[in-house]
Amino acid sequence: MFQTLVGKPLNNLKPFFSPQSVAIIGASDDLNKFGGRVLNRLIEFGFGGRIYPVNPKREKVLNLQAYPKLNSLPEVPDHVCIALPAKSVLDAVDECAKFGVRFCTIFTSGFAETGTEEGKKLQNKIKLIAEQSGMRIMGPNCNGLISFINNFAISTTGALTGENCIPGNVGIVAQSGGLGQVGLMYRAIELGMGISHQVSCGNQADLGVLDFVEFMVDDPATQVILMIVEDMGDGQKLRKVAEKAANKEKPIVILKLGRSEAGRLAASSHTGALTGEDDVASAAFRQFGLMRVDDCNQLIDYAMFLRNNRLPKGNRVAAITASGGHAVLVADLGGSMGFDWADYAPETHKALNNIMPAFGQATNPTDLTTEAFASSGMFAEAISIISKDPNIDVTIPVLTINKSVDIKVGADFVRKTSRPAAMLWTGKCLDDRNLTASSLIETNVPVFRDTLACLRAVQGAMNYGIFLRSRIGEKYKVKRPTKINLSKAQKILGASENSKLGENESRFLLEAYGFPSLKTKAAENEKDVVEFSKKIPFPLVMKIDSPDIFHKTEVGGIRLGINTTKQATQAFHSLLASAKVAVPSARINGVLIQEMAPEGTELILGASVDLTFGPIVTIGFGGVYTEIFNDVSHRVAPVVEEEAMEMLGELKGFSILNGARGLPKRDLEFVAGLIVRLSWLINDLHMEIAEIDINPLSVYENGKGAAVLDALIIKKTKMENQFG
Amino acid sequence: MFQTLVGKPLNNLKPFFSPQSVAIIGASDDLNKFGGRVLNRLIEFGFGGRIYPVNPKREKVLNLQAYPKLNSLPEVPDHVCIALPAKSVLDAVDECAKFGVRFCTIFTSGFAETGTEEGKKLQNKIKLIAEQSGMRIMGPNCNGLISFINNFAISTTGALTGENCIPGNVGIVAQSGGLGQVGLMYRAIELGMGISHQVSCGNQADLGVLDFVEFMVDDPATQVILMIVEDMGDGQKLRKVAEKAANKEKPIVILKLGRSEAGRLAASSHTGALTGEDDVASAAFRQFGLMRVDDCNQLIDYAMFLRNNRLPKGNRVAAITASGGHAVLVADLGGSMGFDWADYAPETHKALNNIMPAFGQATNPTDLTTEAFASSGMFAEAISIISKDPNIDVTIPVLTINKSVDIKVGADFVRKTSRPAAMLWTGKCLDDRNLTASSLIETNVPVFRDTLACLRAVQGAMNYGIFLRSRIGEKYKVKRPTKINLSKAQKILGASENSKLGENESRFLLEAYGFPSLKTKAAENEKDVVEFSKKIPFPLVMKIDSPDIFHKTEVGGIRLGINTTKQATQAFHSLLASAKVAVPSARINGVLIQEMAPEGTELILGASVDLTFGPIVTIGFGGVYTEIFNDVSHRVAPVVEEEAMEMLGELKGFSILNGARGLPKRDLEFVAGLIVRLSWLINDLHMEIAEIDINPLSVYENGKGAAVLDALIIKKTKMENQFG
Repeated sequence: MFQTLVGKPLNNLKPFFSPQSVAIIGASDDLNKFGGRVLNRLIEFGFGGRIYPVNPKREKVLNLQAYPKLNSLPEVPDHVCIALPAKSVLDAVDECAKFGVRFCTIFTSGFAETGTEEGKKLQNKIKLIAEQSGMRIMGPNCNGLISFINNFAISTTGALTGENCIPGNVGIVAQSGGLGQVGLMYRAIELGMGISHQVSCGNQADLGVLDFVEFMVDDPATQVILMIVEDMGDGQKLRKVAEKAANKEKPIVILKLGRSEAGRLAASSHTGALTGEDDVASAAFRQFGLMRVDDCNQLIDYAMFLRNNRLPKGNRVAAITASGGHAVLVADLGGSMGFDWADYAPETHKALNNIMPAFGQATNPTDLTTEAFASSGMFAEAISIISKDPNIDVTIPVLTINKSVDIKVGADFVRKTSRPAAMLWTGKCLDDRNLTASSLIETNVPVFRDTLACLRAVQGAMNYGIFLRSRIGEKYKVKRPTKINLSKAQKILGASENSKLGENESRFLLEAYGFPSLKTKAAENEKDVVEFSKKIPFPLVMKIDSPDIFHKTEVGGIRLGINTTKQATQAFHSLLASAKVAVPSARINGVLIQEMAPEGTELILGASVDLTFGPIVTIGFGGVYTEIFNDVSHRVAPVVEEEAMEMLGELKGFSILNGARGLPKRDLEFVAGLIVRLSWLINDLHMEIAEIDINPLSVYENGKGAAVLDALIIKKTKMENQFG
Repeated sequence: MFQTLVGKPLNNLKPFFSPQSVAIIGASDDLNKFGGRVLNRLIEFGFGGRIYPVNPKREKVLNLQAYPKLNSLPEVPDHVCIALPAKSVLDAVDECAKFGVRFCTIFTSGFAETGTEEGKKLQNKIKLIAEQSGMRIMGPNCNGLISFINNFAISTTGALTGENCIPGNVGIVAQSGGLGQVGLMYRAIELGMGISHQVSCGNQADLGVLDFVEFMVDDPATQVILMIVEDMGDGQKLRKVAEKAANKEKPIVILKLGRSEAGRLAASSHTGALTGEDDVASAAFRQFGLMRVDDCNQLIDYAMFLRNNRLPKGNRVAAITASGGHAVLVADLGGSMGFDWADYAPETHKALNNIMPAFGQATNPTDLTTEAFASSGMFAEAISIISKDPNIDVTIPVLTINKSVDIKVGADFVRKTSRPAAMLWTGKCLDDRNLTASSLIETNVPVFRDTLACLRAVQGAMNYGIFLRSRIGEKYKVKRPTKINLSKAQKILGASENSKLGENESRFLLEAYGFPSLKTKAAENEKDVVEFSKKIPFPLVMKIDSPDIFHKTEVGGIRLGINTTKQATQAFHSLLASAKVAVPSARINGVLIQEMAPEGTELILGASVDLTFGPIVTIGFGGVYTEIFNDVSHRVAPVVEEEAMEMLGELKGFSILNGARGLPKRDLEFVAGLIVRLSWLINDLHMEIAEIDINPLSVYENGKGAAVLDALIIKKTKMENQFG
């Protein structure tokens, strides 16, 4: 049916952004109509390629020759836009595929975002055509794209009218037109920031946010990528795209919606998005090197600093200003963010003291005092001195209301210095109204008007620098630990008839992945109890062994500190009796007799499968810490030992493990090793396992390891399995 | 010497802001000089009163008749400005006082902010003249004030040149000129926000930030007060000023510097500020109803919403937009802030569904979809419908890039609706370049360009509304608890020779303030032990009793669970032996024999004296929670029971006390009562006591109270006492 393209989905989206020829199905002279506005914008934006309006009712549309049907065109256009009512869209898409079109954009609304079965069905049909034909489709329910680099715009956005649109190196991808084209693109243009390409990709029937981000990662014109996403789609794909971006040192800043329940609800009625746990998303972004922010202006702030591609080598920051108040504010906010206002080198002190007023001090941040407004050249000289200081990683000249000479000194310094620098300019220029923040931003100077925004952007870049440096060398290369017996684990999993694996089965499965295991025997009768109580050294723990009882403590199903065989047999009968009363229907295998592990610091170690990111590993403090303080850390599996150590370091209670309050330091390396093992377990078996809960994991002093005191593994239902 | 004003410090600062006559000592024709710029600005700003340049070398200055000396003026001017070199300032101030001047502003730098002894001494002399004469002085090291209401400006700031300065109802007080006049005043002007008065008061030798805030609280022209402060000065004075502001329902928003160590260091070299604990400041601000923010633009954001004096009655918010993406973003961020996107009333649903496109849904936030851009009148109709909904406290129309008709609909609604409303406008007007956010802000419409900024300002106003409502009625009226025996407490304190009160003395002191006390006997010898062990029911706790041992656990100074007299006598000797080994020099009184309290939830209850705010009471979770998770809550003493309950509610682990995880609910009312009592204890005795530490306070089930298991009271040294 779609002979030309079958089996060859096109992954190089370049012609999508820089076509030689474009057709608009539904093109119109009426600028109140979508098809009229899109065509008009394309012409006005100065597109240099061939434009084919398709409209069976007209000879000409907006002075261009019109064509009655797609297949009456003299060529197969590189990119076809569909601006038709929803009911006519499917036929048009079909026509495109048959004509051999490779790229198609559908603006029309009325599909999955309506939440109706009909809308979803219609969208699925579009998806199917894309899959069968290999034609790539953006939309439906989208507002197109603008390629500033290629003078190509297919969108109804009013953001471009009358604006000074400078092409730049910041790429923008969003589902929403309002956020992507107004909240981000228009606001960036207004500020003077140049954009490479902007995409508002709507419902993502075929091409999604990640496809466009990947294009921009590959695109030489784009250095920083800003993305806003309601429906992340495939978390593993994000990981691959992020990996590619990291290899090219192209930062990605992300605004992901759906932090709150209200947000998730609104998103699902906007684009039909279904998303996983938000704190898992945050953890995954950190892990992949994406910078997460909360609002559109923060995305722009980050791009402001990152687009010059100069990353701080450390957190030693210097600021210089003639406003003492600003020096205090910058010092204060930076200090609370962990900036090191490093002491200047002796030669810097000496040189600064030579030019500073009698009561000024060459501290950092450096307050030149109001003398700097009066003394011509003082600001320039001070900046020049500080720019040579070896102790500084980032320099921030802070301007308020200054003469153009000082503004220019600050801007020139930021523009030319080889080290990262940002200009904070809260006021205006006294003697030149045309010298504005935007006029500097247009020439690629990172200028911020608000202190916190400036420092946060610098901090983001610092963190990105740390991320990139952490990837150098071998230690972040994913490697499978030794002593993993996957087939044994699969056998244990397959053999269990229950949806939840009991403690003993869970223990065997964990053993297959190299977990330590307490000496345990399953006793079915009193004779077993007597025998086993002589084989395992006292004191013992005894637990009810039933496939139907999972919260053993709550049904009186555990006895601790058993010191004699007599106590053991008593406990055996008492456990059976308790279980019978508490859960009369429970199948009872007998009791587990286990060596009693010494007391340690109790952690929980878990694994689960996130809707977006797939297999996840989690470490946290047990009991009240997890439930009340939510003190947990997540990563997408599998992880390497360095990442596992980072997870431990992220815990608010980390210092408890690390020897706070005179307690002995705990065996962090051992726990990290277990995190790695569990991450591989869930990575290998996430099609069968829904959840693993090792609780508590008792952790001992350095060198003494940890013990799994209890574990529970929940298998996926058939339904869950199907949706992976 | 200063006959006219002695003993009559002038507290009504009105003539300071609206003088009839002003003299400038050091006035100059040279606009590069401070005295030239101040005079020039005063003239250009359109001041209508009499201006007297004082300059012995000139007949005229800037075309005004000049005077050789202050006392050659034809009248005593209402306000005198001093713009002289530091060495000449003191003589000029002296001259002012002798001439009967009531208000004086000193611009000159080179005083306490230099950190030199000489600078501090000079400033103290200025302060002394103010005290002796009753003349009020602003500065030194200040950049003056601007009263937009009175066309009066004495400042060198460039912020006013060429700007459209509309008087308004937002008052600004800062120490720093850079932050107050640029970061706040200029940026507000730039946005179109009207200011009533602005003050940059520098080193605060006499008049300080709080004096000017108080003036603005009294000033009918000012509705919202924005303050930036490095050195808060007197926390108790802040409390009084805040109380007055709350009575008049005038919100105060504060940016307090010194959050981080770096900030405190920078502040101390800028204005010589010394500040107390920052988390105590945060707690005090909340307690007093001040809204704390982190940056200048946030102060402006809050004022944007608050200046219309319409406070939300609750947290039910509605938003309406034609951009689905913005609907999701607003929902998401608002949801994470605790906004209730309340369901509309049935009649609202019905009316909205009548006008919405087929696939639109009348959810809240309401997404009219892009249809609203095309259908004229749809946005207006929808807003009108929602404005009548009874379930909504705050309404936020969200605009992107729209036609002027819709922008005006949104703005008119926000301007006229009786309920609080804010406009979020991220884009621009399509068909009228003059219709900008600033043009609307100039007409008092609260317009925000960024989502988070908008929602935070709304949240601030919600919290302020809650604060004001909480003050209605009797329960927040400070009242002294019964059963307090101050003179007994003073006697115990006076009798102790040690800098730290031991457990027994501390217990008696707490008893004097109505604290419960465990049955305790002090045994000096074995005979006492035998006798007492028969008077207190087993089990017992025994502790070493020494004025020199405070961390008893660490020296083996405690024995728990003593069940017989024999065990008690053994414990007695063993405790003495342990203490002798651990602290050979310690004076030993004997041991304390105490009933052993049952296990409860362990809290710490403390009191201290903050450098700024004076007596402070603190509650927190004991041990690891306090040290690692910093889970504590502070208040300035004294507090009422409602505030004590709020403190408990602020603890991250509150749910542990409130019955989480199936645990019994704890006796919160009892603990709140103890917080109140301790707050009175430190309030009454903070001149003698430096610190009280009740740790642990063991809290039992509802109705069963709490027990003080250990307590330590540290007295002030003579030196601390002096600085009170």
